[in-house]
Amino acid sequence: MRGNSFGKMFSLTTFGESHGVALGVVLDGVPPGLDVSLEDLEKELLRRAPGQAKGTTSRKESDKPEILSGVFEGKTLGTPIAVIVRNTNQRSKDYDKLKDNYRPGHADETYMQKYGRRDHRGGGRSSGRETLSRVIGGYFASLILKEIKVKAFITKLGPFEFEKNKLDNLDIDLGTYNFADPSKDSEIEDYLINLKKEGESIGGQIVINIEGCPAGLGEPAFDKLKAEFAKALLSIGACVSFSFGLGEKMAELPGSVVSSDRENFGGIEGGISNGETIILKTTFKPTSTVGKKAKAGRHDPCILPRAVPVVEAMVKNVIADQLLRQRAYE
Amino acid sequence: MRGNSFGKMFSLTTFGESHGVALGVVLDGVPPGLDVSLEDLEKELLRRAPGQAKGTTSRKESDKPEILSGVFEGKTLGTPIAVIVRNTNQRSKDYDKLKDNYRPGHADETYMQKYGRRDHRGGGRSSGRETLSRVIGGYFASLILKEIKVKAFITKLGPFEFEKNKLDNLDIDLGTYNFADPSKDSEIEDYLINLKKEGESIGGQIVINIEGCPAGLGEPAFDKLKAEFAKALLSIGACVSFSFGLGEKMAELPGSVVSSDRENFGGIEGGISNGETIILKTTFKPTSTVGKKAKAGRHDPCILPRAVPVVEAMVKNVIADQLLRQRAYE
Amino acid sequence: MRGNSFGKMFSLTTFGESHGVALGVVLDGVPPGLDVSLEDLEKELLRRAPGQAKGTTSRKESDKPEILSGVFEGKTLGTPIAVIVRNTNQRSKDYDKLKDNYRPGHADETYMQKYGRRDHRGGGRSSGRETLSRVIGGYFASLILKEIKVKAFITKLGPFEFEKNKLDNLDIDLGTYNFADPSKDSEIEDYLINLKKEGESIGGQIVINIEGCPAGLGEPAFDKLKAEFAKALLSIGACVSFSFGLGEKMAELPGSVVSSDRENFGGIEGGISNGETIILKTTFKPTSTVGKKAKAGRHDPCILPRAVPVVEAMVKNVIADQLLRQRAYE
Amino acid sequence: MRGNSFGKMFSLTTFGESHGVALGVVLDGVPPGLDVSLEDLEKELLRRAPGQAKGTTSRKESDKPEILSGVFEGKTLGTPIAVIVRNTNQRSKDYDKLKDNYRPGHADETYMQKYGRRDHRGGGRSSGRETLSRVIGGYFASLILKEIKVKAFITKLGPFEFEKNKLDNLDIDLGTYNFADPSKDSEIEDYLINLKKEGESIGGQIVINIEGCPAGLGEPAFDKLKAEFAKALLSIGACVSFSFGLGEKMAELPGSVVSSDRENFGGIEGGISNGETIILKTTFKPTSTVGKKAKAGRHDPCILPRAVPVVEAMVKNVIADQLLRQRAYE
Repeated sequence: MRGNSFGKMFSLTTFGESHGVALGVVLDGVPPGLDVSLEDLEKELLRRAPGQAKGTTSRKESDKPEILSGVFEGKTLGTPIAVIVRNTNQRSKDYDKLKDNYRPGHADETYMQKYGRRDHRGGGRSSGRETLSRVIGGYFASLILKEIKVKAFITKLGPFEFEKNKLDNLDIDLGTYNFADPSKDSEIEDYLINLKKEGESIGGQIVINIEGCPAGLGEPAFDKLKAEFAKALLSIGACVSFSFGLGEKMAELPGSVVSSDRENFGGIEGGISNGETIILKTTFKPTSTVGKKAKAGRHDPCILPRAVPVVEAMVKNVIADQLLRQRAYE
Repeated sequence: MRGNSFGKMFSLTTFGESHGVALGVVLDGVPPGLDVSLEDLEKELLRRAPGQAKGTTSRKESDKPEILSGVFEGKTLGTPIAVIVRNTNQRSKDYDKLKDNYRPGHADETYMQKYGRRDHRGGGRSSGRETLSRVIGGYFASLILKEIKVKAFITKLGPFEFEKNKLDNLDIDLGTYNFADPSKDSEIEDYLINLKKEGESIGGQIVINIEGCPAGLGEPAFDKLKAEFAKALLSIGACVSFSFGLGEKMAELPGSVVSSDRENFGGIEGGISNGETIILKTTFKPTSTVGKKAKAGRHDPCILPRAVPVVEAMVKNVIADQLLRQRAYE
Repeated sequence: MRGNSFGKMFSLTTFGESHGVALGVVLDGVPPGLDVSLEDLEKELLRRAPGQAKGTTSRKESDKPEILSGVFEGKTLGTPIAVIVRNTNQRSKDYDKLKDNYRPGHADETYMQKYGRRDHRGGGRSSGRETLSRVIGGYFASLILKEIKVKAFITKLGPFEFEKNKLDNLDIDLGTYNFADPSKDSEIEDYLINLKKEGESIGGQIVINIEGCPAGLGEPAFDKLKAEFAKALLSIGACVSFSFGLGEKMAELPGSVVSSDRENFGGIEGGISNGETIILKTTFKPTSTVGKKAKAGRHDPCILPRAVPVVEAMVKNVIADQLLRQRAYE
Repeated sequence: MRGNSFGKMFSLTTFGESHGVALGVVLDGVPPGLDVSLEDLEKELLRRAPGQAKGTTSRKESDKPEILSGVFEGKTLGTPIAVIVRNTNQRSKDYDKLKDNYRPGHADETYMQKYGRRDHRGGGRSSGRETLSRVIGGYFASLILKEIKVKAFITKLGPFEFEKNKLDNLDIDLGTYNFADPSKDSEIEDYLINLKKEGESIGGQIVINIEGCPAGLGEPAFDKLKAEFAKALLSIGACVSFSFGLGEKMAELPGSVVSSDRENFGGIEGGISNGETIILKTTFKPTSTVGKKAKAGRHDPCILPRAVPVVEAMVKNVIADQLLRQRAYE
């Protein structure tokens, strides 16, 4: 009820402050008998780890997941799966300066307004580190998704733009920055290094393609598939917009044009998946700590490359939940 | 669990097909002792009724709400409030032609895929009539909101655009079309009449302003205020995008610019209201039944004017829920 | 959240005061394509109607259910099913005397303490009439239960006792009073008529047998099958105890005896059904309005005969919910 | 949805197998600013630890709770509180013999039926160790309960009986066995030692007294206070019955007698607390592993003394949840 749980049949309950003892998640509703690979899980966590690409944050986090329950002899038991990641890099002294320093767009002030207190060492509960729990959830969701492919990619990052909202091949390796066209990687690197030097930051756009999603997912009234995706993605700290299919362009085009091509609806009609490729789009804001403040907090000039695995995880969490929900009634 | 409930402390459970016996809602969590005015409720329902403005649908619906429970001697009892609206205008013969006629962007086909059956007389459960239940909810939510003002207005409708995303005065009467500048009403009327003649349709953009919302609403992780609004609005059939504050423009601007003005975050920081005016934006698609098909179904060339009270209702439902949730912990 | 919903995958949301306009229920999670018989539904409601047996209440209620949604051409649509029953016998004048007359064991005073107000005409929301909604739910649950048989029967009613907690044949017609041995009906009738004359009332014991319930229902931790049944039954107004298998006798017997026969566990081991006959037992208190007060309120000297269909309905609601929950993970 | 969460506003999500890495709980909904004492928490856990009293189990468990999140500088943050206890005493070899040895009344076989697999080392998820999580929850619940006193005590244990269902003074120290009359401790000790020698086991009865509970807790329909308590207590593995007030005796007494004393209703009328002392009663079955099997599994001859703190914890969890729920609407 305090909003730390997500999903009904496949549910995540997450906890942890960025500079507390540990972060983690309890997954309830993972079916029994699924093969678990700690190595694959670590690989997913590594994708969202900082310090991988030049130009992004230089913190080195050693994010070792520990599975506490729900897995026995390499297989899920059907009981809740708890996974924690300890915080080993708690340089909270750096953050003491930030105690009374409310960053615009951040939870710093609103937490004080809400709770009357906060863990001021870093973002506390609102830190990007909280997304670790979501990525862990996404890994276990992928065990349920099987043949369904979920791919997120950056289509706008500063001056770099990718015109299409669909990849030709979802199995493509997107390189270091998760930009839709990985041939731009070295240019992006230069751009981000420069941005960091200037103490500047940048936002951008992430598009998601989902292939192989069966028709019939999503519920008619409030839990429409588009509504579930919107909530899942807007629940990520830096996400500021959501659309599907033609999205905001729908405001520009006449009905005759919109209705002429089913693709315009992005795989979701009447709030329910229609079996076609699902296409979602989100905007991420630039990190709000810039200039001198940023130096204290060691933040990224651009979080989008690291946001991509988080976006994929949240989309997978939604689909796993909807798959199980639909299965109950079939 | 089939997605017909919304909200946790202030919750709506809705039911009803467009051509069934009745539609309605059960509201659980309305505090006791609030004054109920059937007249005010009817006024709200009238705002979403068709046939009010030329150029919009010509169906005449007589939407008389009947309160079945939860209100005694003009005051809420604290027990669940059930309200129904009977369907009196069930010209389902018109719709027989549509039995095997799947409208693009609609639930017609996806319902068949999901359930293996549907009420083909009109949209059934996916019809716009379902929003009656949401508006009823919104009326009761407003009893909890008290001084909080929620105003939605159209900022884009075909060639008509309103440049700002904030009204000077939320008490303004927006006239027939709920366009932000009501002086355009006669031009809009001409435009819509013409559109209807051509069998064409148009979408547009609706912006929401919320004044007087206390700081501290929204929960840190999954139930961030922006995520709750996103879900609420995307759960409306024709809604295809959501953003808040600068929204998609955040992808264009450097962090230094974004961070320079707190207004850019639209009243929500770290997912929690900060006490400033909240600014949300959504896109609505054009109705997908155009041309000859439209004549059979008697649909609007533009649903946005009628969507405005639905948008306001969903926003109020979210705020009422969040207010009660926050109150529990204070 | 105000406790008017029950069940997760097969859920009831109920509403209605005894002397308001109508009572009803919204059922969310009924699978599509099930055959609905209004006649069967009415038959179930008739079982709990008063005035059937001499010695029980003399009110004549004409409980005509009206299905408002979710059923089309005789089959469930998969959308929410709303059913209402109007209150046609609102002799509230009789109850005016009771306005400040708090009946012991009733909600009269506690409602005032909780809400600061109540509908004093009869029990309002706490009236036995609220169970109409549960019986409607039970009817639709039975469409999911198929071959699973649920039979409740009275084993203690004043001086009448039935020694066993298992019927030989669940298809037996239990006659007018739902006592386990229907040959006692005329004796029970005499007893109750006399009781009523004296302005006295009596409670008793109801046992439930469930045959054909598959193994594996119930969840390991908090939603154990026994816990779900306990909650379901204790949520009935007059129910004051719950046990399964040997129940309170477990406090008397050594482990070696208890463990020697699997039947002692009443079909539930580790909180999960084991495929055997499930045996539950409940106690119902005597109606608390006795003597002169009772005359004003026209109450039963014994509600157990009428409680039996309510008990069966709640048990069916639990099983339907658990069946759907389990199916999702298989 | 797999039943590992309990409570709506004050909610526990628990995880962990008895012989896995760790057990634990995530508490969501603990208000901010409450003082946390690790020492007090450990004291509560010690109360349910085995090996304290002669005659009960001889396993030595070192149950060190570790708080991972939600507490900062000794106070709750308002964010989720995760607490884990590592399993340090995993002598699973002892249990290998039990792999295909299904204990009557246990989850051994039903888990296989439900999941197709289980962690056979001890009870896995169905082990009594799972109650650690509940006791941790109960500690944090007590921070919300403040002046409300919750006391559970044994009223029947083999030949030992305590006639009353109410203690004169809830602050009494109940000694080693939590029997209502601690002067019997040495007799009980002799009895249990003897029982253990014989490989026999015994169940019994636990009564709960709650003083200082405000009137108005509990919701009218399904979440009646008695229903919530029933579910909470029946969710404990060995609990086989629940009643309140006069309980099963209500089946024996005429309404005139029952209605003559408000105490007969055990502090709950119409499902809502009335401000009087609340009196609940439960039965616990004897441990089902007896004789030679028991030697392999090192089980207690009687779990009731250790069940008392678990019972108290579950009752506290219910009250904390209901307090927060009620507060939202006031």
